[in-house]
Amino acid sequence: MSSTTAGQVIRCKAAVAWEAEKPLVIEEVEVAPPQAMEVRLTILFTSLCHADVYFWEAKGQTPLFPHIFGHEAGGIVESVGEGVTDLKPGDHVLPVFTRECKECRHCKSEESNMCDLLRINTDRGVMLNDGKSRFSINGQPIYHFFGTSTFSEYTVLHVGSVAKINPAAPLDKVCVLSCGISTSLGATLNVAKPKKGSTVAVFGLAAVGLAAAEGARIAGASRIIGVDLNAKRFDEAKKFGVTEFVNPKDHDKPVHEVLAEMTNGGVDRSIECTGSINAMISAFECVHDGWGVAVLVGVPNKDDAFKTHPMNILNERTIKGTFFGNYKPQSDLPSMVEKYMNKELELEKFITHEVSFSEINKAFELMLGGEGLRCIIRMDA
Amino acid sequence: MSSTTAGQVIRCKAAVAWEAEKPLVIEEVEVAPPQAMEVRLTILFTSLCHADVYFWEAKGQTPLFPHIFGHEAGGIVESVGEGVTDLKPGDHVLPVFTRECKECRHCKSEESNMCDLLRINTDRGVMLNDGKSRFSINGQPIYHFFGTSTFSEYTVLHVGSVAKINPAAPLDKVCVLSCGISTSLGATLNVAKPKKGSTVAVFGLAAVGLAAAEGARIAGASRIIGVDLNAKRFDEAKKFGVTEFVNPKDHDKPVHEVLAEMTNGGVDRSIECTGSINAMISAFECVHDGWGVAVLVGVPNKDDAFKTHPMNILNERTIKGTFFGNYKPQSDLPSMVEKYMNKELELEKFITHEVSFSEINKAFELMLGGEGLRCIIRMDA
Ligand SMILES: NC(=O)c1ccc[n+]([C@@H]2O[C@H](COP(=O)([O-])OP(=O)(O)OC[C@H]3O[C@@H](n4cnc5c(N)ncnc54)[C@H](O)[C@@H]3O)[C@@H](O)[C@H]2O)c1
Ligand SMILES: NC(=O)c1ccc[n+]([C@@H]2O[C@H](COP(=O)([O-])OP(=O)(O)OC[C@H]3O[C@@H](n4cnc5c(N)ncnc54)[C@H](O)[C@@H]3O)[C@@H](O)[C@H]2O)c1
Ligand SMILES: [Zn+2]
Ligand SMILES: [Zn+2]
Ligand SMILES: [Zn+2]
Ligand SMILES: [Zn+2]
Repeated sequence: MSSTTAGQVIRCKAAVAWEAEKPLVIEEVEVAPPQAMEVRLTILFTSLCHADVYFWEAKGQTPLFPHIFGHEAGGIVESVGEGVTDLKPGDHVLPVFTRECKECRHCKSEESNMCDLLRINTDRGVMLNDGKSRFSINGQPIYHFFGTSTFSEYTVLHVGSVAKINPAAPLDKVCVLSCGISTSLGATLNVAKPKKGSTVAVFGLAAVGLAAAEGARIAGASRIIGVDLNAKRFDEAKKFGVTEFVNPKDHDKPVHEVLAEMTNGGVDRSIECTGSINAMISAFECVHDGWGVAVLVGVPNKDDAFKTHPMNILNERTIKGTFFGNYKPQSDLPSMVEKYMNKELELEKFITHEVSFSEINKAFELMLGGEGLRCIIRMDA
Repeated sequence: MSSTTAGQVIRCKAAVAWEAEKPLVIEEVEVAPPQAMEVRLTILFTSLCHADVYFWEAKGQTPLFPHIFGHEAGGIVESVGEGVTDLKPGDHVLPVFTRECKECRHCKSEESNMCDLLRINTDRGVMLNDGKSRFSINGQPIYHFFGTSTFSEYTVLHVGSVAKINPAAPLDKVCVLSCGISTSLGATLNVAKPKKGSTVAVFGLAAVGLAAAEGARIAGASRIIGVDLNAKRFDEAKKFGVTEFVNPKDHDKPVHEVLAEMTNGGVDRSIECTGSINAMISAFECVHDGWGVAVLVGVPNKDDAFKTHPMNILNERTIKGTFFGNYKPQSDLPSMVEKYMNKELELEKFITHEVSFSEINKAFELMLGGEGLRCIIRMDA
């Protein structure tokens, strides 16, 4: 395929969001060839993460429409632009919204994965190289999303947004490592770092939160307390090592007080995976003074304010945030995939639904209805 | 002296705060003998820390009057109560507001120094053993402060609040290790942990802030940026390795933006040593995303709210708080004193004033006027 399409505009199907909160429309789009340091991918599988829904609802920064969403996916390199030496047509890859230029202070820092050059910029919507979109319909440009735009049969990414993985790995499974699962596994293992035998609270028990719980289980936590407003979440969560459940709706007192009572003063670590500002504050206030660490993963709304009494901080609590679980995509994703291949990491249990590309709006409905975890969208069906 | 006074009520001079914000009055008080697990000390030198002023202004929790303030001091054990085996009359000690029971989860944790049993409780004002004060004037009890009450020739403390030190150490110098200097030296070295070559911002350039700067210098920071609203602070600060100065009053834009511009995006570490909520928020917002760590040391007011956009946290910034620089007093203070004895730590430069006990209100005036660093109060003069 690459021999015939390389250097050509490709016409293919993409799910276009024309307006906030309106169903996506499958359109025929034109995808321009990759420019310098860009690659064009065939997307085989994509899945829906809350961040897609959030920008589709236009709760994020400046709303940009029309837009092609999607950032959790698995694909194959179709062609590469000038200067790309690390990737070639046929390589199996995961696109990632956090990137690596390998040159900037962030990429060189052990602590950060927030590359300066390729950092996520949800206001941009165009490629860095020429400030233009590679997508169009009859000459009208369609904005890129997160530098990935995987709700399209073909998409163009900066080479720094692509992690090459083992070609033997099933893309319909490992595609979920492309965002949510890696994010909160890393939030627990790389950022919260619970000790063996400790107590961990997880706020939000959808895919991202359950991967955080999985991380706590791997780290040897002895109590994993799941918190969600949606009682439907609790049954599924048992498969992920969550040992106790708290629904804030079942209590008159604030949830951080409920957790403090359950744990003799507070949990050792908490990981917030909801996007709700209330949950972010509770996740901080429920950690034990002296040593407690709270990690924020959820993406807040534009006008949210994180507010707490400063004495809660002074009392030797720590709060941190993370993107993509502090993993560096190219450096760390290939080995996450190997963990799956070696059965050290189970991904199947995160995948509760599957739809064809033409049914992509069903995936949105499931997430909005609080049903299931990840829904795989098959591009070829 | 101990032979004649042990077990007896001692009559001595103490500086009593009868009311908020009114000058202390030197009174003759009665000091009861120490009970089980308590010790009675002769205080030889004490100094004034902002926390004394703060509770004297009744900005803290429930105001308790009459009160004997004071918590930064050096003294000698006069007598010990039942069950005290680690200390004996004549031992040289530093009283400390953070304590160690050596049994609780905090004392056993490497991360915390917030002992459960002996934790600071500024609402209590009495001894744990019998819920009563050891101080009285004509039968009227006078409240204890911070479990230390060092503005008195004699005072009674729980044995867990006392660190035994090298008797060769000059108490008129090492007394400043009893609170402020250790606190922020530890805030930098134990909590913020700047790397060699990094950039550190210090908010507040009085004694506590300058000891934070000293910590940054010891850690090998290459830029130490001092922030204070009081321009008088800048000259003195040069002696403490502060390399650049920012007075928020000199700028139209918020100080965290000024710092971000000076440092290509933010400082690596910041340490807040002011007690001002605005400084706490700025100290957080001025750290670099990806790896920045802010540490709060200042004691906030009752009604303060720490407020920031949650995206500032999500962008991989960390905020923490500390009491007493995460040092455990009995475990760590003796070796801090040794550092001074070995000339690895200079304390003289923190001591800018000295007054006699009868002039104690002058020490308050100096601090309220933003003059000098530590003022030593000589009890025998
Ligand atoms: N930081 C990152 O790099 C990163 C990466 C991926 C996802 N995210 C974010 O993580 C969050 C979770 O993603 P997801 O795909 O699992 O989302 P989701 O919408 O499927 O799940 C969110 C869960 O949180 C629960 N919830 C909502 N408010 C709550 C509250 N106040 N208390 C307790 N539970 C509450 C919901 O009932 C739901 O089960 C989203 O905000 C997403 O944008 C962040
Ligand atoms: N956490 C602890 O264990 C601990 C221990 C000791 C002291 N403290 C606290 O540390 C703080 C400092 O103590 P200190 O004795 O040096 O106090 P201080 O009053 O002598 O000094 C405070 C300094 O901060 C400056 N300042 C005030 N507001 C500011 C602002 N918005 N921006 C910049 N600078 C500002 C003042 O001009 C002054 O120079 C106090 O709040 C004290 O209670 C905490
Ligand atoms: Zn995502
Ligand atoms: Zn980079
Ligand atoms: Zn103090
Ligand atoms: Zn203890």
